[in-house]
Amino acid sequence: MIRHAAIFKLIHAAGSPQEASFLAALAKLSAIPGVGSFEIAREISLKNAFDFAVSMTFADAAAYEAYNTHPAHVAFVQSRWIPEVANFMEHDTKAL
Amino acid sequence: MIRHAAIFKLIHAAGSPQEASFLAALAKLSAIPGVGSFEIAREISLKNAFDFAVSMTFADAAAYEAYNTHPAHVAFVQSRWIPEVANFMEHDTKAL
Repeated sequence: MIRHAAIFKLIHAAGSPQEASFLAALAKLSAIPGVGSFEIAREISLKNAFDFAVSMTFADAAAYEAYNTHPAHVAFVQSRWIPEVANFMEHDTKAL
Repeated sequence: MIRHAAIFKLIHAAGSPQEASFLAALAKLSAIPGVGSFEIAREISLKNAFDFAVSMTFADAAAYEAYNTHPAHVAFVQSRWIPEVANFMEHDTKAL
């Protein structure tokens, strides 16, 4: 099982309608086939410069790739992620 | 519920006995009271500079603080984490 996570900071003010709109659009990615354990979380540590995290699981690399190339994901990245995310870091992990 | 995670890179060579020793010592932190869903994972993305991730959950901030100040955690940080971790980033998140 692969866990995919992205930690990110938006260009929007905390608590703004723009922030809520982005998070709502992000949440819809959970409907893409193959996505499991989808979770959006708020960063509460002061030890890093990110505000949110999104994580999900895939059964295998093929399922992950199907998500990456799914039209709904590609459209989200182009129309929301790239213009509205100020900074991010991706993580893909496999439990030992 | 709070999820605490640290992504990290060791000073040890991949596959070395030193690496295995560190991961075994890290795994023992799962026995500290209040720690839930403990998982050590290997980073498989090339998009960041870390090699491993460890994550766990706590019911609340008090449980997290009890872990942070637990003698077994304090000893691990001093004797293993500080000398053997080359780089790391911590995350604490709460699901939205």
